[in-house]
Amino acid sequence: RINGDRLWESLMEMAKIGPGVRGGNNRQTLTDADAEGRRLFQTWCEAAGMMVTVDKMGTMFATRPGTDAEALPVYVGSHLDTQPTGGKYDGVLGVLSGLELVRTLNDLDIRTKHPIVITNWTNEEGARFAPAMLASGVFAGVHTLDYAYARTDPEGKTFGEELKRIGWVGEEEVGARKMHAYLEYHIEQGPILEAEDKQIGVVTHCQGLWWLEVTLTGKEAHTGSTPMDMRVNAGLAMARILEMVQAVAMENQPGAVGGVGQMFFSPNSRNVLPGKVVFTIDIRTPDQAKLDRMRARIEAEAPAIAEALGVGCSIEAVGHFDPVTFDPVLVGRVRDAAERLGYSHMNIISGAGHDACWAAKVAPTTMIMCPCVDGLSHNEDEEISREWAAAGADVLLHAAVETAEI
Amino acid sequence: RINGDRLWESLMEMAKIGPGVRGGNNRQTLTDADAEGRRLFQTWCEAAGMMVTVDKMGTMFATRPGTDAEALPVYVGSHLDTQPTGGKYDGVLGVLSGLELVRTLNDLDIRTKHPIVITNWTNEEGARFAPAMLASGVFAGVHTLDYAYARTDPEGKTFGEELKRIGWVGEEEVGARKMHAYLEYHIEQGPILEAEDKQIGVVTHCQGLWWLEVTLTGKEAHTGSTPMDMRVNAGLAMARILEMVQAVAMENQPGAVGGVGQMFFSPNSRNVLPGKVVFTIDIRTPDQAKLDRMRARIEAEAPAIAEALGVGCSIEAVGHFDPVTFDPVLVGRVRDAAERLGYSHMNIISGAGHDACWAAKVAPTTMIMCPCVDGLSHNEDEEISREWAAAGADVLLHAAVETAEI
Ligand SMILES: NC(=O)NCCC(=O)O
Ligand SMILES: NC(=O)NCCC(=O)O
Repeated sequence: RINGDRLWESLMEMAKIGPGVRGGNNRQTLTDADAEGRRLFQTWCEAAGMMVTVDKMGTMFATRPGTDAEALPVYVGSHLDTQPTGGKYDGVLGVLSGLELVRTLNDLDIRTKHPIVITNWTNEEGARFAPAMLASGVFAGVHTLDYAYARTDPEGKTFGEELKRIGWVGEEEVGARKMHAYLEYHIEQGPILEAEDKQIGVVTHCQGLWWLEVTLTGKEAHTGSTPMDMRVNAGLAMARILEMVQAVAMENQPGAVGGVGQMFFSPNSRNVLPGKVVFTIDIRTPDQAKLDRMRARIEAEAPAIAEALGVGCSIEAVGHFDPVTFDPVLVGRVRDAAERLGYSHMNIISGAGHDACWAAKVAPTTMIMCPCVDGLSHNEDEEISREWAAAGADVLLHAAVETAEI
Repeated sequence: RINGDRLWESLMEMAKIGPGVRGGNNRQTLTDADAEGRRLFQTWCEAAGMMVTVDKMGTMFATRPGTDAEALPVYVGSHLDTQPTGGKYDGVLGVLSGLELVRTLNDLDIRTKHPIVITNWTNEEGARFAPAMLASGVFAGVHTLDYAYARTDPEGKTFGEELKRIGWVGEEEVGARKMHAYLEYHIEQGPILEAEDKQIGVVTHCQGLWWLEVTLTGKEAHTGSTPMDMRVNAGLAMARILEMVQAVAMENQPGAVGGVGQMFFSPNSRNVLPGKVVFTIDIRTPDQAKLDRMRARIEAEAPAIAEALGVGCSIEAVGHFDPVTFDPVLVGRVRDAAERLGYSHMNIISGAGHDACWAAKVAPTTMIMCPCVDGLSHNEDEEISREWAAAGADVLLHAAVETAEI
């Protein structure tokens, strides 16, 4: 078993970097805080005898050699970047549990056949640069490097410039390395495991996603002297589209979600009807056909809603992944490990996207989840217990080491 | 008659300061561009033989002495500040027509009994610091100086700090001076005069306004892993409140408007349901009882809509003026002047708020309007013709000089 206290101390140490305002973290990707977090992780990896290399997307790989020089590595890990008002565990738990796994193997003087590599994927969150899971997407060949470098944050800075600015552009070609397997341990970010009183989520699938960025073009006009029948009101069109997204999600229950997290009014002045409203719709479901239907309906209805008000509407897909089915052998191995260790467990579908979703395109992949309090994530109040953290790390240790022997 | 070409040249010269991105202006109050605009106006006033003084709100008063040392001045003017994406005429026309009036009197060597004072009121727009018409509100005793100084812009800077920073804090107590009359010339900012093919709007009333700033408190949560029935979705509550505001305005037709120009999501990340949504509702009507009813209904229904979704709702009034009836004698004088000069005219109610609404509390006040193309204002494409501009300035000249002789 891993050392739960040591894992917890590392989590608390990392959480000091990029503190939030309410006890969580703001360590968004490619900020100075991100660079500081990377340096701390590198120091820890090197102290544990690993060599850290970096690829052109800034993704970090910390390698613990295996006994077989020919064997492909087993990858574990997740991401150290956070939301602007994020929690201390989302992503970080998976990376530092990988470190804890290596520290445990070192303590026990165990060498595995396959090397073990801990990965810190760049820009998993997608909060600063859409889409999410950007570096793993390039790794899996879903995006080109040029596409990734050209992503912009709300201030117009590009991913490429910012990666260079913080000094984490590596030499390695992205996706050059091959994987024997990839195992990602993550908090659930949802309420199911806690409600079902299970310690371990055996992740069998991940839901698919579309991010649809809607740009509504109205007519900037005075809120006081523009009669109701002369308005081209992009704000009202937005309100109706949000209600429609809600309806589409509700009509696809169970197993579908839809909502809007990001919204920009322009010029955003109290007495000016907005000339432009831009927002991103987030829809997800594990069912491929349902996902396609939801997207098609939104793409048909949003422009019609806007047009009825004379408002222009364009929609750009700024993020997407299809539903994923994880590798059955690895899934079975995670379940067996939980069983063997005496942890309560259940099958679960990941509600959030993860780097594992892209890794699954190029390697046998699966995930392990632990509960989080009230299902809360992407919130500074995100919380897990020390015991939950340790249980998942134990399962990761067992499943990864077993995989590294085969 | 005034010199229409000279007036137009001055308008175009002022428009060079704080240019917009599409041919309009961004000369928001208490910015460096505002300071530059003030300096240019001061230079022009001094060249026309006037003395410029400034009060503690930064409002500028340019005085042309009268022949009677005891007589209270006749005030003309408006404001030089603009919206972030504003036009070249909103406010500026009234100030520079005052200057043109004085230049014309100088050319004709006419001296009036009462002094004539051109006023540039600080922060009429309210785009950067709510409420609008802030300096004239302090002048009329509606707000205290402390209240005004403490207003903050979206970056958290206060009005008091920014006024000091640009170097325009004057010595004069706000509201110390008394007015014989105040006449404000402004573009209509609405479509009526153009539609009715009239050159002059004889403004009899101004509609009343409430700005209701709504703060919705939801639960920040992951857009993917938070099931629909566990969401506390402040964005959805916002959408429903916008639809309700639209309904309230439509049910109060004719003669009422309602809409939302300013919107903030927090943390404003694509995959986070907003923990907080803040927006400002703008409702107006010339009918006092209707205005009260509309406000009461919104203040009752918005919290109920939010509560049905578990969302918290608080509402703060950040701007308000009651409907105004302008001074009948001055209104008659404007109508007579238009008639005498051979300009087509009609009575009109101001859809927008103006410094004249506050001045009306402390002095006989009225307004003169000219049409604007397509009723467009608070838009960089705001446009008027040289002839429209000149006609209103002629009426201002006649009505103001007549008032200055009585
Ligand atoms: N795990 C996680 O929050 N990833 C970000 C991408 C997503 O929104 O699902
Ligand atoms: N004239 C004008 O746009 N004033 C700003 C205050 C308002 O919104 O009416």
